[in-house]
Amino acid sequence: MSKLMKIDKSKKFLIVGLGLLGGCYAMALKKKGYYVSAITKNEEDIEFAYQKGIIDKGSTTVEKDIIENADVIVFALYPHTFVEWIKQYGNLIKEGTVITDVTGVKGCVVYEIQSMLKEGVEFIAAHPMAGREVSGVQNSDDKIFKDANYIVVPTENNTFGAIELCKELGEILGFARISVLNPEKHDEMIAFLSQLTHCIAVSLMCANDNPGLVLYTGDSFRDLTRIAKINDEMWSELFLLNREALLTEMEKYRKTFDKLYDCIRNNDREEMRSMMRISTERRGEFNKKEG
Amino acid sequence: MSKLMKIDKSKKFLIVGLGLLGGCYAMALKKKGYYVSAITKNEEDIEFAYQKGIIDKGSTTVEKDIIENADVIVFALYPHTFVEWIKQYGNLIKEGTVITDVTGVKGCVVYEIQSMLKEGVEFIAAHPMAGREVSGVQNSDDKIFKDANYIVVPTENNTFGAIELCKELGEILGFARISVLNPEKHDEMIAFLSQLTHCIAVSLMCANDNPGLVLYTGDSFRDLTRIAKINDEMWSELFLLNREALLTEMEKYRKTFDKLYDCIRNNDREEMRSMMRISTERRGEFNKKEG
Repeated sequence: MSKLMKIDKSKKFLIVGLGLLGGCYAMALKKKGYYVSAITKNEEDIEFAYQKGIIDKGSTTVEKDIIENADVIVFALYPHTFVEWIKQYGNLIKEGTVITDVTGVKGCVVYEIQSMLKEGVEFIAAHPMAGREVSGVQNSDDKIFKDANYIVVPTENNTFGAIELCKELGEILGFARISVLNPEKHDEMIAFLSQLTHCIAVSLMCANDNPGLVLYTGDSFRDLTRIAKINDEMWSELFLLNREALLTEMEKYRKTFDKLYDCIRNNDREEMRSMMRISTERRGEFNKKEG
Repeated sequence: MSKLMKIDKSKKFLIVGLGLLGGCYAMALKKKGYYVSAITKNEEDIEFAYQKGIIDKGSTTVEKDIIENADVIVFALYPHTFVEWIKQYGNLIKEGTVITDVTGVKGCVVYEIQSMLKEGVEFIAAHPMAGREVSGVQNSDDKIFKDANYIVVPTENNTFGAIELCKELGEILGFARISVLNPEKHDEMIAFLSQLTHCIAVSLMCANDNPGLVLYTGDSFRDLTRIAKINDEMWSELFLLNREALLTEMEKYRKTFDKLYDCIRNNDREEMRSMMRISTERRGEFNKKEG
């Protein structure tokens, strides 16, 4: 991959793993007029995608033909399944193919995958920061990309061409903001912004078993715990794969939580108000960029 | 107050404190055709309310006439201001008047106010669980009551008639659900559902000072920190007035957060998944009742 590869309309995409995100990719790419094929476990997901018109070809088995026919392959699998897949079938990918992914953690996946691929096949990692509290291609909707962030996560092994192509893919998919981070910075950021928030929501739901609370719930509790409905298989894997970064962020957060606890215990109103003012000011920044 | 007092259209309301919530009360009551007067500090708030047509009469000073003219007085003040007001002007309230409030904590206020009132004036506490991240009558909008909870908080000193009247007021204001809790249960519930969530959001915003995070924020972080924009004067007062209950809830939450932390540190995937499943199941209950 030394020359720039632009994503013109002749480029063919293969999605491996037609779940919620894979389905969103297929949907967005088909709308823009690209050829999209898919490999996924369940026949019914292929059937659904055909009927919805979001794929041109589908298979529940890994065939040489469908892989060789693709210019860009998007892996939308759980991290360990992604690694297993490349181990087993990576040699079927033809030279000149660019592969990318949607994995929510990077350091533990990117280097390993890159080291397994043969010369001429390039893996450029990406993290589409979009999702829903439901799963499956049946719930796919590419609207979730509209206001969302897309992060390209290159290593030193990546070429300029592949990084540009991956950015272009983010644009084609319809993301609002596209940025670039290295795997380590990405994992640190995701530990704070995404994984820690899920830890908080889960802990809060586990802290009180009074079902009567439903009667009195306000919006603040509902908003805060929206993500407490969580896919335990996927998130436990993501947490453990990003263990060190997540533990660090949990410790930092626990320190400020404990500081606030001490303020309340010690009737230290001034210190408490100072924390609230910092919080208000910082959250204001996030609002500005929302629109 | 031995006989049932129904809120027919001849009843006159006085709102003391024309801020965000006081303004919402005025708005909702005027729409239903009631006479509404208001006492508040700033002339401009009175002016605004007149122009909006949400009050019939307003005053920036506490006058005997306007107080005696009211059948129901709603106090929409900070807790300590409410107590001060009753100390100073409580004797002006005529016999047969029912007073109620919007205060977010109850135990520390209700008994004290009830003990200060003269015979024939009854205070029945209420907590409208609705709000916005902005303040002032200029931001009032009675739509915030539409899907919200309204809690009547009687003590043993309250009459059946006043409790029923207060429930009826909740209906007139347009609340979705009206319930009854004693002050102690109310404060325990509010410590968990509302105060703890605000503590979490503030702590999370204080835990990381990297402004670059804005670029990568997803919906989960935004939803979780919406309430991190916080009125530090009001909330620090509410936290300290409900100190014991809040500290207890903070400790319970801190325990489950630590348990999850230990699962991650010890690679205990099964225990982590079990917490996530409890969380998912409980949060599902909250969803059902939402619509």
